[in-house]
This record gives sequence, C-alpha cells and structure tokens, in this order.
Amino acid sequence: MLPANLSGGLRGRDKKGDKIEFKGIGTLMALIVQKFGGTSVGSTDKIKNVAERVLRQQRQGHQMVVVLSAMSGQTDKLLGMAADMQAMPDPREMDMLLSTGEQVTIALFAMAVKAAGSDAISLLGDQVHIHTDAMHTKARIKEIDTELVHKHLDAGKVVVIAGFQGVDDDGDITTLGRGGSDTTAVALAAALKADACEIFTDVEGVYTTDPNICAQARKINMITYDEMLELASLGAKVLEIRSVGLAKRYKVPLHVRSTFSENEGTWVVEEEKIMESMLVSGITYNKNEARITITKVPDQPGIASKIFQPISDAGILVDMIIQNTRQGHMTDMTFTVMRTDYARTMEMVQKIAEDIEAESVTGDESIVKVSIVGVGMRNHSGIASTMFRIMSGEGINIMMISTSEIKVSCVIEEKYTELAVRALHSAFELDKENPPRVEQQ
Amino acid sequence: MLPANLSGGLRGRDKKGDKIEFKGIGTLMALIVQKFGGTSVGSTDKIKNVAERVLRQQRQGHQMVVVLSAMSGQTDKLLGMAADMQAMPDPREMDMLLSTGEQVTIALFAMAVKAAGSDAISLLGDQVHIHTDAMHTKARIKEIDTELVHKHLDAGKVVVIAGFQGVDDDGDITTLGRGGSDTTAVALAAALKADACEIFTDVEGVYTTDPNICAQARKINMITYDEMLELASLGAKVLEIRSVGLAKRYKVPLHVRSTFSENEGTWVVEEEKIMESMLVSGITYNKNEARITITKVPDQPGIASKIFQPISDAGILVDMIIQNTRQGHMTDMTFTVMRTDYARTMEMVQKIAEDIEAESVTGDESIVKVSIVGVGMRNHSGIASTMFRIMSGEGINIMMISTSEIKVSCVIEEKYTELAVRALHSAFELDKENPPRVEQQ
Repeated sequence: MLPANLSGGLRGRDKKGDKIEFKGIGTLMALIVQKFGGTSVGSTDKIKNVAERVLRQQRQGHQMVVVLSAMSGQTDKLLGMAADMQAMPDPREMDMLLSTGEQVTIALFAMAVKAAGSDAISLLGDQVHIHTDAMHTKARIKEIDTELVHKHLDAGKVVVIAGFQGVDDDGDITTLGRGGSDTTAVALAAALKADACEIFTDVEGVYTTDPNICAQARKINMITYDEMLELASLGAKVLEIRSVGLAKRYKVPLHVRSTFSENEGTWVVEEEKIMESMLVSGITYNKNEARITITKVPDQPGIASKIFQPISDAGILVDMIIQNTRQGHMTDMTFTVMRTDYARTMEMVQKIAEDIEAESVTGDESIVKVSIVGVGMRNHSGIASTMFRIMSGEGINIMMISTSEIKVSCVIEEKYTELAVRALHSAFELDKENPPRVEQQ
Repeated sequence: MLPANLSGGLRGRDKKGDKIEFKGIGTLMALIVQKFGGTSVGSTDKIKNVAERVLRQQRQGHQMVVVLSAMSGQTDKLLGMAADMQAMPDPREMDMLLSTGEQVTIALFAMAVKAAGSDAISLLGDQVHIHTDAMHTKARIKEIDTELVHKHLDAGKVVVIAGFQGVDDDGDITTLGRGGSDTTAVALAAALKADACEIFTDVEGVYTTDPNICAQARKINMITYDEMLELASLGAKVLEIRSVGLAKRYKVPLHVRSTFSENEGTWVVEEEKIMESMLVSGITYNKNEARITITKVPDQPGIASKIFQPISDAGILVDMIIQNTRQGHMTDMTFTVMRTDYARTMEMVQKIAEDIEAESVTGDESIVKVSIVGVGMRNHSGIASTMFRIMSGEGINIMMISTSEIKVSCVIEEKYTELAVRALHSAFELDKENPPRVEQQ
C-alpha cells in the first residue's frame, strides 16, 4: 500500500510537526512532483520550455520529479492504428501500444534537461515499480517503490517518469485509463512524501464556474479535496476525480496551474488548512445525462430492484433516482443515465415497464444538471432553498433535485444552462473579490 | 551465454542426429523464427498481410516466433525529434526513445493475429530477458531466457518479439545498433534451438551481384556463412554482418527471402550442408572508401605505428593498407578509410607526414573496392590471377589488392565499377544456371 503517514503540510522537508500553516512552496528545499499534460509537451519546442521551467525551480534548491503524458495527438493516433487492426483491440496489447506515447516524451524531456546542462533520467512505470492490478486499460495502482527515485534525486537529477502506465504481477504493461497521468503524479507524490504535487494544464486553475458561459467566472485560490471531488464528479474537467480522491486520502497538497504562465493556480488542500471556507465554492453543469421516467409503477416491495438490476447488469451507470408516490399505490420513477447509454436504456426500460405493468415510459435528452458546491453548506442552512428561489425567479422549472453534505444539484431543461449558471454565480457573489465565507469549525 | 549445443540441421524437432541432410523446412512440426523489417510492416495493412502469412505457416503445424522492426520511417522520425532536443543525444535516453518503434509494431501485430481468430502475445526485449551489456545504441546480447517464449508457444500462441532492443543489468533499455533486429532474430533462434531463422526483406534473397548494375545477376539458392560474412562486410546490404556471425557460431540456418512473394530465397548454412561449392559465389563493390597515399616515407622501424596509432586513437577505421618499398630506404604507404572520415584523416595525415619527414600526401575519393567471394577458392588456385587478367583485359588499372582465404578485393577507379562487375560476373559464369563448382572436401 501507499504510505499513509504523510503529515500533510506544505513545508520544507527538514521541518517537523503536523499543524503548521499552509504556506505554499517556500524557499526551503522541497520535493515537488510536477505533472505536464499532452498539450504542455505537444512539440519538441514545448518540451524544451517545460524543461527550462522545471530547471528554474530545481535551481531554487528543490528536488524535482516530473510526470509526463504523451504528446498531444499521439494517443489518438495510436488508438486509430489499433482500430485498424482489431474491432475490439485486445486490452493487453492496447496497453503495450499506448504506453509508448509517454515513453517518447520522457526520453525527449531528459535529453532537453541534459542539453540545458543539468542531469536527468527517464524512468518507465515498470522501472519505478508502479505496481498495478491486471485490469488492462483501467488498472489501479497497488504499490510504488520509491528507492530508485530517491537515489536519482539525491544524485541531483531531475527524475522524469512516464505517466499513465504501470506494471502488473506478470510483468505486463498496464495503463491507468483516462486522466491516468494525474493519478500517477499524485500516487508518486504520496509514495515519495512529496511536499506538493503540481498539475500543469492549459488553464490557470479551477474556476468558480465555466468561463466560457459566464464571463464573471473567477479563479479559485484554494479549495478543499471534498469540494474538488464534487466539482470533478459534477463536470469540471480540470482534474481527474481518481487523482483527487488519492490526494485526499494521502493528504497530498495539489496545485492546479497553467504551463503557460507563472501565476499561482488553485491549491487543493485539507479543509483544516483553509481558515475560512466559501459558502459556495463553485458552480458546475453537466450536459452528458438524459432523463427517463416510468409512470404509474405499481408500488410494491422489490419494484426498484426489478427496474434497476437489469440496467446495472448491462453496465449502465444510473446517476440520480427520484420516486414520486401517487395516490392508489402507484409511483412515478425518474432517473438519469449517460446520454451515450440513453437509447439502449430506453429499449430495456420499455420491456421492463411492460413486465411490471407500468403505464408508460417517457424520456428527455435535452436536460442539464446544474450544481453548487461548497463546504460552507455544512454549517449553513438555507443554501438549497436560495438556489431554488433563484431558479424560480428566472422562470426555470426544476425537474429533479439531489443533495449531499456539500452540494445541491438540480436537473433543468438544457436551454436554461447559461441563464441558471450566471444567475447562481451572481446570487452567491462568486464574481466578487471577497465572496461570502463561513468560519472554519 | 547462448546455448552452443545446437545440432545445426534443418529438421523436425522430433528427429535426432547431427548429420542429416539439409532439407529446408519440411512438413514436420518445426520452430521457426521469422523477422520482418520496417518496409514489411510499414503500414497497418502491411502488418495485417504479414500476420496472415505467419498464420498460414502456423496452420501447417509450426511454432512461430515473429521478430519485428519499427514501421519504416518511424525510427528516422524519432531520431529527428532527438536531434531537436540535444546536439549529441544521450545514448541511454536515445535507447528509451527508439525502442518505442518496435513496441508499437509488436502490439499492432498481436492485435492483427487476434483479429484473424488466432492467439498471439507481444513481448518486449525486457520481458524475454534479452540481456545485453550497457553499451547504449550498440549493445551486445549476453543471454536470452527462453522459458516464457516456450510457454507461450506451447500454448499455441504466435509469440511476437520486439527486435533491436534488450535490457542491461540495471534494467535500462538498450538497443543493438544498425540491423539490430536481424541480430535479435538470430540470437532468439539460437537460444530457442529453432529449426530456422527466416529474414524477410524487400528483395528475393542474396544475389550474385547488385542487380541494379548487372542485369545478369541471379539469386543465390544456397551460400555458406563464411561467404555471406565476406559479402556482408564487402558491401552487400541484405543481411547485417553481426547476425551472420551469430548464425555461424550457433549454426542457425538462415533463410533470406521476400515478404512480397512466396518464392524460396537464399539459405545461408554450414559449409558441410552444401555438397558442391561455387568457385565464386558473389561479386560485391563498395564505394564508401577513400584512398590516402604518403610518398617517400623514411623506412625505419616503428614508422607504421607512428602513422596509424593517431588515426586509430581518433576512432577512424582503416581498411586496406599497402606498403611499396622504394629504393634508398624509402617507402610509399597507401591505405583506405571510410569516405566520411576522409577529410578528417587527410588533415591528420598531413601533420604526421611533416613530423616523419615524408615527401607528400595524396588522396582520392573516387575509388571503388570490387571483390569476388567463394569458398571454392580454398581448393582452387588461379582465381585471383583470373580476376587480374579480366580487369587488365578491360583496361582497368588495379591500385590496391587485398586477399583472404575466400575473397579477392581490388581497388580501382570508381568510374569502372559497372564495367568491372559485369566483366567478372560473366567471366566467372555467374549468369549461368550451373556456374563452375568445386566438390566439397
């Protein structure tokens, strides 16, 4: 297992104590894991720029571990060739194929560091012993051996590690699935007890909402793991959700920032590190779902299982489920699935509805799920009702509601997406320099 | 070390005895290693064709091991990117980079076999434990572990192995240098005690001479390791010389043939397997050398060392050396180097000539070395003089001569290349169905 004894602070490695203040990466010698995605290393010139950036930080006295994705476009090119060979490419061979993308970038990156007069070494998932299970194309990391990495760091090298890949018990190459390089970086940071894990991307950080539909969107300076998990699961694409979960578990301070600027991005940290929490941290929307309703379902024990077991058996993920009881032992059952599963699910559900003698099945692909997220909700009642009031004030009908401790989601008609997001963003004052905050308990 | 106990015959694996006749790959179950070069696997369609070809042989009951090069053009593309990063790319990182080329083809090939309904597994140099020394970009194979390959063969799989690559004691990826995939194939065939190693290329086999300059050139059906070694070292490009040396040492029957036809190619085998040897097997020419002459060198002990030690120290290979003694304790020293080393060598030699008080230095880049090769020469005198007589009859002046047990090389003016090759080809009757042969001793 990964080590669980991280103290969780961002601090110089020679400091002791678990409760020091959050300070960012300071001037003391730190061990920093930096991950650069495909667009950041998309050409030889870009790789050179990134190498120079890493070296600037190394010269400040930090130990640098760099995790790289494949050059942008390369993975798609390999997937295309695989599709030419086999309709459903063999997963083991797919991993053998795809893992070459990262191998190319780490070798070129190490050359760039050496060309700049410093020392570097590239290492594959296999060489760092990133042990995974054998679930090809979506493997999970079981263990990382850090000895070799520490040895090269102590020798003053930039250690350049292939993201996305690992090795299973049989010595076969595995890959970690979509966003796998983020997971590699966080897992390495945890195993190495790194002071921070910085995820470089093509945006400045995590925003209060999507700047493409809300011009008032602002970069969030600091956010908790739980909020980031909700944002990631609700549609924010900047961080892969598995890597956030891993960061939370091992208390790895995450820094999401831009490859193309020197600005600070968004720090994702433990709740205790944030003195004041936002009432609402961010607003997301997700247009990937579709709604299905079965009307007049006979309300008897086991009916939910009769509906959802076959759907689950077919590998279809159901997100929200709502049940409205009618008069006369009848109920309406509404739920959402991914839009890509919509047609298949409708077909199944129509048969099920006949079997259980429900009245009818209706569906709607033109929906959106709009969510507000903030740890401040835990201590503040009335946030959900504020949300409903704002929607109502804009004349937006809410079809479904789902809540958790730190988020409220509403399903509405898709055409109201921009209107709803902008209204909520403004109502919760996320466009202001100092939005409403709550004191930490 | 590789196993040295190969019995050396081409035979079914269930036969015993070392002295059976050469029969080619018969109908008995054989273990065959097939190597396909970059042009043979240059596109997804070509990979599919090669996979079908391999499966046709497997269906005849043979166990098939396939060694692949990178898709044509891929290695050059990677070299170009490396050159962008670093003027002299780090050799370890170069191997990390280049080895991805073969990894891509073996994965695609395994998919193609699976798509055709058979089973296959791709394996990297590391996974087959192709242990090499640590001389990155030109490593030598020390050991191969065949257990995993036999396991997968016995399970009925086509085993697809990345050519060109190995792994050193530190677990770092190494590559074997130019033509390295041929070496991988032959080394695997030796280690696996394969019945044959077939090298597939874009020509039909080994020719009596270059068909591009001599229309009468004919495909050789059978040739000895020693002849092939001479031909390869003298300029024939069809087989990498290191792989021929390895095949000779472990008595691996080599079959050079075309990917794009079903014709038998050229078998390279032990001399004992050939009942009658050709007087002359082949004629080669090499335009890659340049001549340098130092005139009136004072003839005193140690003078050769004074000339050639600095050249050797500079890493320059000297091929032929000829010394003509003049009257009065003076000598002329003539030698050849690669044309790419010519300018550098001339510069060095001019300084040396001053130091040793020689008269002058002259050089000539427009030369060619034409050679005749044949094991029949061992038992037949007069072949060299026949060669000289033919050259003279064509009015060609011979500048330098070098001989070995089974070859004669003459350096002449480059402009006479075609004339000399055609005249020799005709005089030694290589254009005939049954050229002159000598009985084996």
